[in-house]
Amino acid sequence: MLVVITYDVSTLSGEGQSRLRKVSKICQNYGQRVQNSVFECVVDAAQFAELKIKLKTIIDHDEDSIRFYQLGNNHKNKVEHVGIKKSIDLEGPLIL
Amino acid sequence: MLVVITYDVSTLSGEGQSRLRKVSKICQNYGQRVQNSVFECVVDAAQFAELKIKLKTIIDHDEDSIRFYQLGNNHKNKVEHVGIKKSIDLEGPLIL
Repeated sequence: MLVVITYDVSTLSGEGQSRLRKVSKICQNYGQRVQNSVFECVVDAAQFAELKIKLKTIIDHDEDSIRFYQLGNNHKNKVEHVGIKKSIDLEGPLIL
Repeated sequence: MLVVITYDVSTLSGEGQSRLRKVSKICQNYGQRVQNSVFECVVDAAQFAELKIKLKTIIDHDEDSIRFYQLGNNHKNKVEHVGIKKSIDLEGPLIL
């Protein structure tokens, strides 16, 4: 299924900047960055649970915010893009 | 249906900052800001089409990026939040 992860991590402090880097790194392991603070991850239920646990342990729950949107398996027509950074088909062939 | 709108608007220039304010203002007319660059809007198909047209005419297509995620009508279990800024039930009663 496609899961969209959006986050606001407070970067006022050095700790915040460190958390932001960690959140990005974890999300990168599961999917594709599509905007500065938005990732799209194609995961199964177990991976999704694992990803949430990892992110929950990193963020400061009083300062940071993460949202998860489940778009299911049939998601191709549910995502639209306008402007730069066209989306990459996560499940399509990788062309190098 | 619930539509999630995420955007990256380049704010390197004064024009960019002006576009960002306009994008926020339009989104606010249709829904609720849930993170810095993320809005959740409960709209019908006509409103969604209207919203997209408005945003497309404002952004700089070479610099800015907007993504639309359609979560359908049955979206309550598809959205999860961790950390600050708990989501607001857009369709629930407004308690002042």
